[in-house]
Amino acid sequence: MTEHQISRRRFVGAAAAGAAGLAVPGTARADGHGRSHRRRRHVDVAIVGAGFAGLAAARAIAAQRRSVLVLEARDRVGGRAWNRPLGDGEVSERGATFVGPTQNRILALAKAVGVRTFPTYDTGDLLYIAADGHRLRYTDTGPTGNAPPDPAILGDLARAVVMLDTLSKDVPVAKPWTAAKAAEYDSQSVQSWAAAQGFSPAFDALLPVLTRPTWGAEPRELSLLFTLGYIAASGDEQHPGTFERNSETRGGAQQDRFVGGSQVVAEKVARALDGRVVLRSPVRRITQRGGRVRVEGDGPAVTAKQVIVAIPPALAGRIDYDPLLPPARDQLTQRWGQGALTKVTAVYPKPFWRDAGFAGQLLSTNGLISVTFDDSPPGGSPGVIFGFVGGDQSRAYGRLAPAERRTRILAELAGAFGDEALHPTTFFDTPWSEEQWTRGCPVGIPAPGTLLGYGPALREPAGRIHWAGTETADYWQGYMDGAVRSGERAAAEALAAL
Amino acid sequence: MTEHQISRRRFVGAAAAGAAGLAVPGTARADGHGRSHRRRRHVDVAIVGAGFAGLAAARAIAAQRRSVLVLEARDRVGGRAWNRPLGDGEVSERGATFVGPTQNRILALAKAVGVRTFPTYDTGDLLYIAADGHRLRYTDTGPTGNAPPDPAILGDLARAVVMLDTLSKDVPVAKPWTAAKAAEYDSQSVQSWAAAQGFSPAFDALLPVLTRPTWGAEPRELSLLFTLGYIAASGDEQHPGTFERNSETRGGAQQDRFVGGSQVVAEKVARALDGRVVLRSPVRRITQRGGRVRVEGDGPAVTAKQVIVAIPPALAGRIDYDPLLPPARDQLTQRWGQGALTKVTAVYPKPFWRDAGFAGQLLSTNGLISVTFDDSPPGGSPGVIFGFVGGDQSRAYGRLAPAERRTRILAELAGAFGDEALHPTTFFDTPWSEEQWTRGCPVGIPAPGTLLGYGPALREPAGRIHWAGTETADYWQGYMDGAVRSGERAAAEALAAL
Repeated sequence: MTEHQISRRRFVGAAAAGAAGLAVPGTARADGHGRSHRRRRHVDVAIVGAGFAGLAAARAIAAQRRSVLVLEARDRVGGRAWNRPLGDGEVSERGATFVGPTQNRILALAKAVGVRTFPTYDTGDLLYIAADGHRLRYTDTGPTGNAPPDPAILGDLARAVVMLDTLSKDVPVAKPWTAAKAAEYDSQSVQSWAAAQGFSPAFDALLPVLTRPTWGAEPRELSLLFTLGYIAASGDEQHPGTFERNSETRGGAQQDRFVGGSQVVAEKVARALDGRVVLRSPVRRITQRGGRVRVEGDGPAVTAKQVIVAIPPALAGRIDYDPLLPPARDQLTQRWGQGALTKVTAVYPKPFWRDAGFAGQLLSTNGLISVTFDDSPPGGSPGVIFGFVGGDQSRAYGRLAPAERRTRILAELAGAFGDEALHPTTFFDTPWSEEQWTRGCPVGIPAPGTLLGYGPALREPAGRIHWAGTETADYWQGYMDGAVRSGERAAAEALAAL
Repeated sequence: MTEHQISRRRFVGAAAAGAAGLAVPGTARADGHGRSHRRRRHVDVAIVGAGFAGLAAARAIAAQRRSVLVLEARDRVGGRAWNRPLGDGEVSERGATFVGPTQNRILALAKAVGVRTFPTYDTGDLLYIAADGHRLRYTDTGPTGNAPPDPAILGDLARAVVMLDTLSKDVPVAKPWTAAKAAEYDSQSVQSWAAAQGFSPAFDALLPVLTRPTWGAEPRELSLLFTLGYIAASGDEQHPGTFERNSETRGGAQQDRFVGGSQVVAEKVARALDGRVVLRSPVRRITQRGGRVRVEGDGPAVTAKQVIVAIPPALAGRIDYDPLLPPARDQLTQRWGQGALTKVTAVYPKPFWRDAGFAGQLLSTNGLISVTFDDSPPGGSPGVIFGFVGGDQSRAYGRLAPAERRTRILAELAGAFGDEALHPTTFFDTPWSEEQWTRGCPVGIPAPGTLLGYGPALREPAGRIHWAGTETADYWQGYMDGAVRSGERAAAEALAAL
């Protein structure tokens, strides 16, 4: 039995047995047919969603000895962090994977629950496949760093990064809509911005390869203002964000991984909450009346003084609110769609690419996969490689028959790392757009033109409702760190309002 | 008692008494607390939403002697067409108002239920207020037509219209994502497109005044591809769409009005459906299983062979589907937000502006209101004028205190038509973003970058679920005519699948 399985049972068991901090313990199971066990619970703060945002919020509230209950739709915690057991206690990460410098809050949380990090495997050569199929093997200790030393793209890539970093410095973290040039930037997609720069066709082909893993989106879907804000947020209060810190492995957001897989951090936080997390409890309605909030759905009904909704805006908009949400907040949820991202994973007896001198990192402009990483456990066995299939490629992948998906992906891996890639012991994909309680990954993205009109509604509480989730973060929006930050911020709001 | 009130009672009464065409008649009332009278009804086709799309679909299905039931969330039919009684049997239109040439399907429907049209009041001078506050009075029989003869804008306006009309000719109606230059157009907002044309600052100030009433959006929020598709759709199979037909009064989409107000057409269609429309019945869940569809919510539960969801994509996405919607369709609903539009209406004993030689039509780049029209009943009493407040102006208006709203709007009307405007007998606004069952007007707008990735999912059925609503129309998307067309198309789909 894996740790994942053990902890899943523990939550349900603890909740069913009743738990400290709850005025009225009750059963945790919904019957799965839309009716709920209506035994009412009363808490200071109810939380919707047991991803990192909701869990961090619950932890902060419990630490102040206030009562809290987290309602989670799924039968597991972690949200976009989700381990897949590989046998022998090893796991692969189906969603959020990496952590890096300045991601202080997720690192502190992991440390607090005793989860260690280890370096992402980053030894050996990198691979780049150009739009014409040309394959380039290179080392990131060369003069171009981790940028492929392809003359057709190198100049434009350096120019684009400098421009984006420079422009991002004038975009205030957490409030990009207040930038001096917000109207100009929010009127442009990254695609139309790039078109105006006169980049080479080779760089134009590379651009979506950069946006697909990061946002699950094509450059045409991204507001330049949002993108600049995202870069500005790739740091912390002491270290201004940069494109490089966002995109790099060593020294960047892909530098480290969690021993046991990222979800184990969420599981340990949830376990420490000792019964305050109820699984299989989608929330359908939030009613504010008479100085209280009632939270109802397929699980137990909860009344609370304050509520934290710690799910992406697009999903938050699907809850029925009474009274209605303010129009700006409601329309925000209509325009902040989740990215389109599928993670494809192949498992081998060992990471054979390491023997061939590869780090397992591919950047490809010529296939479904944009980027790969070595996701093997710390001991290096089994060998796990995953690829990001995002934006138009994710949508195209979704239209393929399952057998075709596997064939296409393995062929791409073989084209990069050799024919041994054709014979994994396990292949699986994680199409996040099909996940009912996420409906897209890695993050919600406001369409061009949206931040300027609706940005202020992103975090503004609606009465006793506070908004969390990585989309609402200041730093590291879209990352586990941003989720934790958002949860801690929302908890502070809710505590102050008690 | 107004016709509106009479017909409302009739629907509920007829439904409560049971009605022909239903296998199992049942009660029509929900108790308003989220629980429903679960007596089951079985029909060939269930329809969600009694706007023009749903009603036209129901009419087409009933005409084929198939059983049909329409579930409507509100306590009225008509959706975005909504009359406000003014006393003495007269009404003002809070939403959809006008019809014009090539809008053949709404005109045929109105004729079939005996509702006549009359010309929009269009006699007298027009008014233009420039960004600098300069007021220009002019006649549309002059050489510039209904374009303000302001040299600062005239050339650019003519150039922009010719460009948009020309570009739109290569955008296929109903499938703009298949245009040869779809990727190029969908990557640009109307704002970034305009910025590249080198228009004058005066024209730049005019541009949002054109987009706010039409889409409830700023130029930065609009995909150029979507906008070109909308222009292409402003016609019919024999008459290619043009910007002019969309924007003009005489010869255009604002040419005529319905006697009794636009909602009366919906009411008469609903009455002819004789109990097949159930009010106060929001749909919460649609389950496809075993060759049947179950439609459930606060009203009666219905099982059907096929279902037509005739509401905007953003609201359709808030229904709980089992099995889940295909990911492309689900993500479409996350990115197709309703426009931001508030209609402000002032009622006077008589249309005093007519005596002063004004048509009541204002185009203003210098206030909350972008455009006004004379909305007086055919007999000219009382005098009714309404204004469109859209996009950023609608959002700004929503942040004002109610008293401030009235003061600001009346001051703008007085600045245009004289001080008599300061003293209406009635003033009211209709902030469509606050309407729970519309959540924005006049239409849903796909963000830049969306049509290319998600357009094909707009109308593609999800099993036994067919999609209607003006957003899914071929011609006259966003208008009552498009709603009727979409309903008739979805009905044909559903009938063929029975």
